[in-house]
Amino acid sequence: MAVDPPHHVVIVGAGFGGLEVARNLAKAPFRITVIDRRNHHLFQPLLYQVATASLATSEIAWPIRSLLRAYTNVTTLLGTVVGVNGPQKKVLLEDGAALSFDTLVLATGARHAYFGHDEWEPYAPGLKTIEDATTIRRRILSAFEQAERTPDEAERAKFLTFVIIGGGPTGVELAGTIAELARDTLRNDFRNFDTRQARVVLVEAGPRILPGFRESLSDYARRALTHLGVEVLLGQPVTRCTADSVEIGGQHLPAETILWAAGVAASSAAAWLNVPADRAGRILVQPDLTVPGHPDIFAIGDTAYVQMPNGKPVPGIAPAAKQEGRYVAGTIMARLRGRNSQPPFRYRDAGSLATIGKRAAVVDFGWIKLTGRVAWWFWGFAHIYFLIGLRHRLAVALNWLWIYFTGQRSARLITQGDRTP
Amino acid sequence: MAVDPPHHVVIVGAGFGGLEVARNLAKAPFRITVIDRRNHHLFQPLLYQVATASLATSEIAWPIRSLLRAYTNVTTLLGTVVGVNGPQKKVLLEDGAALSFDTLVLATGARHAYFGHDEWEPYAPGLKTIEDATTIRRRILSAFEQAERTPDEAERAKFLTFVIIGGGPTGVELAGTIAELARDTLRNDFRNFDTRQARVVLVEAGPRILPGFRESLSDYARRALTHLGVEVLLGQPVTRCTADSVEIGGQHLPAETILWAAGVAASSAAAWLNVPADRAGRILVQPDLTVPGHPDIFAIGDTAYVQMPNGKPVPGIAPAAKQEGRYVAGTIMARLRGRNSQPPFRYRDAGSLATIGKRAAVVDFGWIKLTGRVAWWFWGFAHIYFLIGLRHRLAVALNWLWIYFTGQRSARLITQGDRTP
Repeated sequence: MAVDPPHHVVIVGAGFGGLEVARNLAKAPFRITVIDRRNHHLFQPLLYQVATASLATSEIAWPIRSLLRAYTNVTTLLGTVVGVNGPQKKVLLEDGAALSFDTLVLATGARHAYFGHDEWEPYAPGLKTIEDATTIRRRILSAFEQAERTPDEAERAKFLTFVIIGGGPTGVELAGTIAELARDTLRNDFRNFDTRQARVVLVEAGPRILPGFRESLSDYARRALTHLGVEVLLGQPVTRCTADSVEIGGQHLPAETILWAAGVAASSAAAWLNVPADRAGRILVQPDLTVPGHPDIFAIGDTAYVQMPNGKPVPGIAPAAKQEGRYVAGTIMARLRGRNSQPPFRYRDAGSLATIGKRAAVVDFGWIKLTGRVAWWFWGFAHIYFLIGLRHRLAVALNWLWIYFTGQRSARLITQGDRTP
Repeated sequence: MAVDPPHHVVIVGAGFGGLEVARNLAKAPFRITVIDRRNHHLFQPLLYQVATASLATSEIAWPIRSLLRAYTNVTTLLGTVVGVNGPQKKVLLEDGAALSFDTLVLATGARHAYFGHDEWEPYAPGLKTIEDATTIRRRILSAFEQAERTPDEAERAKFLTFVIIGGGPTGVELAGTIAELARDTLRNDFRNFDTRQARVVLVEAGPRILPGFRESLSDYARRALTHLGVEVLLGQPVTRCTADSVEIGGQHLPAETILWAAGVAASSAAAWLNVPADRAGRILVQPDLTVPGHPDIFAIGDTAYVQMPNGKPVPGIAPAAKQEGRYVAGTIMARLRGRNSQPPFRYRDAGSLATIGKRAAVVDFGWIKLTGRVAWWFWGFAHIYFLIGLRHRLAVALNWLWIYFTGQRSARLITQGDRTP
């Protein structure tokens, strides 16, 4: 008796969305292949804490194949996808290999985008990967080291100026934590200057920071940042970045450290399939998250543009990617059982959170809002809850309690870039 | 009334030796400057655990200026020393700056050495810095990933062959841990091959591994490694390394991963001063650890060759460097009080330790020896005791207990080198 080979589901990208699809299909009669160009799943909401020396890299990353080890129908491949052949139903890998699929899920995520100013990237690094985080950490810590060695006052001011471009959650969290580093963590470590002289400038082109939150929370966050010593510039677009300065609304500001938290663009998935995308490169998916013209190809997370009934897009955050992943897994299962028509995906607002330093946060659930310490503790418990596995939870909790009570951050390593002979 | 400026002690290198000098002088009326080209002090005895994905980088490293923050007479500088002007009593920095000293302590450490085969370095990386450790970790983990993607049996065998050159403690510890990774940690993570097929080969040119230990312990270690599945080759020098093979005693062995644990050479300190050194570049210091002809310049740790009464050199291990650091601090203090003649440095043997995987170790105190589990627990407690600060101790203890009871290693990150577009 001939047995049909099991239906092959290929998932490209093991972020929050892709991993959720794999897990929800793992017990079903599919053959599943997860491809990622990195060997680890990254908890991006806490990446800014690696960049600011609060957490170690391995505390927010997990080997993908270890997360999926229990699911014997799942194979994990380390590989870079460079294209998709829709008609032949094949995924093309960088090394020339091709992988056939019956169903494909594109969960390839996003990179930071410079809105037509790619030349700014070397001067103003963004924050998406572990390497981005260690690069930013090196730049922040090296700036203080250079300030210690400079006798010149103007030079020192330049080394001690930190400009963060973009007032979304990442920008707010970076600005707040850098201010705390300068005012608290590093305060007694230098001899030739007072680290509290450091200027932390958060620049937002729009009228308020945290535009995804309700207005009163934006106001609160601005005041909380100001209280930490951060200068918040609103309605001021950055018009130029160089190696050691930034131009904001025509004004020139010497700054050694410039960080980019202003925008992201989706991966090349739309181009692979030559399908319509929004300005940020996200595929304009159907209500069931399939790619137009490709009923067996889904796009989720930052790869997809999904409109909500209120006309706004589903936000590019982890809970949204997970919900989409669960929905797609459900659709694939239903199809296996012969049910081909599914109700459209509906996003349930999971709330928005952002921290401002280690004492305050804002939480916006729509029906309730929290600020201050209560919000901070809520934020902390929520993030520990969403970390995978007891070990990571214990390690992060230990670090946070340590920082909370001592102000000391233990991951203050300047690595790479400083090549030793 | 004119006051003499305080005596300026410059310490180059914040390893175990340099740090010990700084700490022991910190309460005395000196001005002290510590220069290091890295911003962190590294606990090198555990570096192999970073290389084998057991510990995070920040768990065995401390920001130097944070360790010295309480000593207000100590200034820490991040900088690379490129020379010393003995007659003018100046230290020369890479950026052209010069720093005057009254007393200089050279504690500049060692790098791995290839005995005239520097062309092997790219193929067989050694283990001295955080970057070395993440490079080795990437190579080990990537080899397993490549094995998963190769259908060819010979290719796969090459990816699954790990050759460690050098049978000292680092080589033994790397070999034992890689064997455990293959047999235990990674066992259920791959679908296309059995990770227990991996070959781990430890090559030692001399007649036994752990030559610094008594012979019965070398024997025990060899048996314990063999029990873990490591092939131990004795009396076999490596005659050639290429990108994917190694030649041992004329025999060609295809191997994707080759690690170097065979030898170290001191930094360039002897050349800076143009003073006699041994073959490994260590300065032949006087009995009081001063550099011949330079009574105000001391050399300690891996920078110095110190002969013991039995004719053997003081070993290049952390306790020796610390003892030398304390001795030098004592000498500098005594001189301040006008006592210029000190008894010569005497090394007190602190014992030798090495682990073989997570169940066995060897401990040699001279008067007593330990093996097996008892030795392993002793090794573990000793190393946690010598870590600096409660936070690092807790973090490392948590990781070890986790590995001990679950077999899982959490720092399995492939980073750098895998550039994302």
